[in-house]
Amino acid sequence: MVAVVQGLSVDLVFFELLIIMMRWSQQLIPTLRETPQEAEIPSHRWMLRAGLIRRLSGGLYTYLPLGFRAMKKVEAIVREEMNRANAREILMPALQPRDIWESSGRWTTLERVMFAMQDRQGRNMVLGPTHEEVITGLAANELDSYRDLPMNFYQIQTKFRDEIRPRFGLMRAKEFIMKDAYSFDADEEGIARSYQSMYEAYGRIFARCGLETTIVEADSGAMGGSASHEFMVVSEVGEDGIVVCGGCGYAANLERAEAPALPMSAEQDDSERHLEPVATPDLRSVVEVAEFLGLPTDQLIKTLIYLKDGDPVAVLVPGDRDINEVKLGHVLGAIGVKLADDAVVEQVTGAPTGFAGPVGLSLPLFADCRLEGRRGMVAGANLADTHILHVDLARDAGDILYADLCLAKDGDACPRCGEDLSERRGIEVGHVFQLGTKYSEALGATFLDPHGDRKPMVMGCYGIGVSRTLQSVIEQHHDENGICWPLTIAPYEVEVLVLNVSHEESVRTAECLSKDLEAKGLDVLYDDRNERPGVKFKDADVVGCPIRVAVGERSLAEGKIEVKLRRDQDVEKIPVADAVEVIVGRVAMLQREFLPGE
Amino acid sequence: MVAVVQGLSVDLVFFELLIIMMRWSQQLIPTLRETPQEAEIPSHRWMLRAGLIRRLSGGLYTYLPLGFRAMKKVEAIVREEMNRANAREILMPALQPRDIWESSGRWTTLERVMFAMQDRQGRNMVLGPTHEEVITGLAANELDSYRDLPMNFYQIQTKFRDEIRPRFGLMRAKEFIMKDAYSFDADEEGIARSYQSMYEAYGRIFARCGLETTIVEADSGAMGGSASHEFMVVSEVGEDGIVVCGGCGYAANLERAEAPALPMSAEQDDSERHLEPVATPDLRSVVEVAEFLGLPTDQLIKTLIYLKDGDPVAVLVPGDRDINEVKLGHVLGAIGVKLADDAVVEQVTGAPTGFAGPVGLSLPLFADCRLEGRRGMVAGANLADTHILHVDLARDAGDILYADLCLAKDGDACPRCGEDLSERRGIEVGHVFQLGTKYSEALGATFLDPHGDRKPMVMGCYGIGVSRTLQSVIEQHHDENGICWPLTIAPYEVEVLVLNVSHEESVRTAECLSKDLEAKGLDVLYDDRNERPGVKFKDADVVGCPIRVAVGERSLAEGKIEVKLRRDQDVEKIPVADAVEVIVGRVAMLQREFLPGE
Repeated sequence: MVAVVQGLSVDLVFFELLIIMMRWSQQLIPTLRETPQEAEIPSHRWMLRAGLIRRLSGGLYTYLPLGFRAMKKVEAIVREEMNRANAREILMPALQPRDIWESSGRWTTLERVMFAMQDRQGRNMVLGPTHEEVITGLAANELDSYRDLPMNFYQIQTKFRDEIRPRFGLMRAKEFIMKDAYSFDADEEGIARSYQSMYEAYGRIFARCGLETTIVEADSGAMGGSASHEFMVVSEVGEDGIVVCGGCGYAANLERAEAPALPMSAEQDDSERHLEPVATPDLRSVVEVAEFLGLPTDQLIKTLIYLKDGDPVAVLVPGDRDINEVKLGHVLGAIGVKLADDAVVEQVTGAPTGFAGPVGLSLPLFADCRLEGRRGMVAGANLADTHILHVDLARDAGDILYADLCLAKDGDACPRCGEDLSERRGIEVGHVFQLGTKYSEALGATFLDPHGDRKPMVMGCYGIGVSRTLQSVIEQHHDENGICWPLTIAPYEVEVLVLNVSHEESVRTAECLSKDLEAKGLDVLYDDRNERPGVKFKDADVVGCPIRVAVGERSLAEGKIEVKLRRDQDVEKIPVADAVEVIVGRVAMLQREFLPGE
Repeated sequence: MVAVVQGLSVDLVFFELLIIMMRWSQQLIPTLRETPQEAEIPSHRWMLRAGLIRRLSGGLYTYLPLGFRAMKKVEAIVREEMNRANAREILMPALQPRDIWESSGRWTTLERVMFAMQDRQGRNMVLGPTHEEVITGLAANELDSYRDLPMNFYQIQTKFRDEIRPRFGLMRAKEFIMKDAYSFDADEEGIARSYQSMYEAYGRIFARCGLETTIVEADSGAMGGSASHEFMVVSEVGEDGIVVCGGCGYAANLERAEAPALPMSAEQDDSERHLEPVATPDLRSVVEVAEFLGLPTDQLIKTLIYLKDGDPVAVLVPGDRDINEVKLGHVLGAIGVKLADDAVVEQVTGAPTGFAGPVGLSLPLFADCRLEGRRGMVAGANLADTHILHVDLARDAGDILYADLCLAKDGDACPRCGEDLSERRGIEVGHVFQLGTKYSEALGATFLDPHGDRKPMVMGCYGIGVSRTLQSVIEQHHDENGICWPLTIAPYEVEVLVLNVSHEESVRTAECLSKDLEAKGLDVLYDDRNERPGVKFKDADVVGCPIRVAVGERSLAEGKIEVKLRRDQDVEKIPVADAVEVIVGRVAMLQREFLPGE
């Protein structure tokens, strides 16, 4: 007879033979007393101290047996939920010809982060950090009719990214494990369904991994799509800024967050006074100038010169605000947006950096909507060491395009309900994305609709950082003594620990118990090492199996063993005869906590 | 309750929900009527025609759903057998700093086949085609005492190799899936046990995959080790030459095969005649000269100039023999051995290529042992268009080192039993290797023995080409209509096929049956397409599930369905009520065929 294994079947004959007692002494579980210097955040520290990973060089890690097992459990959850959502598992090459990236137009934007090389035939190759180009080419060749749609493909794969500054262990690594999925639909309704299905699958995946995530609206511009959400783990060490509303639940990536124009603290000056230069020697920053003039910073106009695909433009925001370059890129309709350097600034404004202003500047002008209609403002004079007072943008500057160009910030009003937004940091563990027809048009992925018309497929893409998810779980589930694994992804669910390896009855009982629990389908780590009980208990806390079972002479004299949950303090004495049943019951209890929606 | 999944546990609640009926119409199974031009061998042809893989570019393939499933089944078998053999699964980075390859001395030898690049910090990186350097570094850091040994680590990983001429689909690809394992022992007895254990595991793995392999002795020189076997699939399209003895079972890679000196057909000339030049204008090859002189080719001495790490040496073999460069490398003790070019030949012999000979040549001389004591031979005269007759090597040439330097060939005597050897081609699917202490010494992987002495660990390494194994199975298991999967790695064990999707009872019966079989743990592919029965039957043969179940109106009228094994012609009519039981029985029967040792 056969049993299902991740949708595959294996032979029970082999299965039965395969109940192997996992002895700590025969594994490599190199726990550390001290935290290695490289570890800057708790999850990284505990991954090293519990012997889950080891660093090969910057951003490159080996998964040791415990880390590998936990990762495989995350993968198994991802796989089950993808299969349940009717996505089909495939595997695409990591190595790709560069020309497909040139065809899609992304070589320019992603060149920096791609590892690139030539092969021996002299062809330009890259290690793909993502697979839109490959999968769209596949869809173009293999899907032809509306009857072939919808179709959703996924893969779980090692990805490479030339991080300039790898950090935090698996959080920002050069080589990492991703699940990426790509959906193909006939129309907008189809992609909406596919998107929703992935969105829900992601919720289940993170819930089953025991990971609390915040779903935020995300920018979709660079990928050319229309809707996008990120699954964020809120954490001080996150790379992304996000805002969340305590009122209505609105949450967004800072890049994306709307920042509606609300009244500024500076009072509107209606005196219609004339422009008046003022000497501001060496005062280049908004704060310095505002202080010098005794004015609030938001009465100043911050003027920055940007290059829009190489051409200079001037961008104006209130002095107390930062420019959101992602929003700016959308407004400018630019492929690339970057700050001009000092030489360009001097060339186009006639003044050193720090003294640019909209008055008399012959550049295209873009201003944040907060500035619309403002008078009595202070701006740079396009003259060294000089600013101008009483600026009325409508009166004194040329044509201005107004738009939301500011980064949202803590205390801004929620664009939905008006309550205060809070700023947080987030670790992006998942991203769902409606790509629209950008890639299918660029790469010819079309289909025949029921009327015989050829149309581009409507695409979505969906990513999960598998290795990052693993580490994020530890970031959320640890205490001062080590990891506290959620049962669902713990490398072993139960650790059986024999206090004294010289005491025969203890050893016999611990071995029997380990085997019996394995036979029940539990993953059991048996600490058979000839170490003091103190060392073993400490290591058990570091490694963090959800259930710890201690077998010792004293309890055995009463016919009992000791069961403790990693997260609790209480130790329960259980008769040896009941041990298997009780432990299986505890596992089932812990498992139920991670059913999605509970 | 929980069930074991590849040694991990998953939640049965989810399991039960996950019985998904796999409809052909919702998969991507793009079978082809025609064979694409790129396919040169049967397995490659059927992988394309059955929709298992698609080519992205030379040597780079995407695994489509069916190919991916079959591959995962091979991986699962590999994993089970590795775990059973007490190897621990880990995962090392594919991307590696180049300097570890320089430390081990392998950068020079493997540079050609490694993809290499610089990262943004300007560090030299490579994609490792193998992991001795990384694992030995890990062992050096993490294993310290004889109590930590033996230890055996494995990984299943995507590997990269800059093939100059990728061919035959997954057989010789630039990106492929490997299982590589590395064992660490305290002494020779330990490594012998580890080696034996892997050797046996490999036998079980290939047997369970339904792959017939020939185990051959392999060369171990380049890796620096002492014992080595390759698991070969005998096939005309194999890259490796092997010899096998029908008598005693001796089998060896041509590189390794001993070629004992036996009497040559040319009679020994004892006349002690003087050297005599003979004009051989423009006759450069042994065959041309022998024909011109009316002598057997083995009365000629073939003299080739090689560069031993850059220095020229002369190598002599009988005229009817080829030089085994691997053996030559060992005899010379050289890192690199290559044929000298014409310029060098002319410089050191004074004659154009084709006229070199041992007489009067002031180079180190190495000769095959067959030549020892030979007289009356013909050799080049180191003079254009001239050979010399009556050469007596002992009399006429300088000091010669004699050794076995020939490639074995068809009809040679077996070095063990003297029977005739046969030459074959083989596809290497596995390789086991005793590395000794080469890497542990180079990279400082030492341990403290029980006496407190520090010693280098004794290493072994063990590889399986997982993707190559998959394709090799197809090379062995196909007929003129398509693939005939062994049950153990078939993407689906059963295909249920409904003849007419407009006939409601057929559809209902087929769906029920598919679900019931899935519920029994079988992998079922349900062909629900609105296609003619002929198309479906043809596709079923191409795709090659071991058991085909057809549901049609006519049989159903008798209350029956039709069951056929892919490999047989007979169609069995089974009452619908018995169908599940019968099919489960057939699966169990087919499964038993792949138990190792049966």
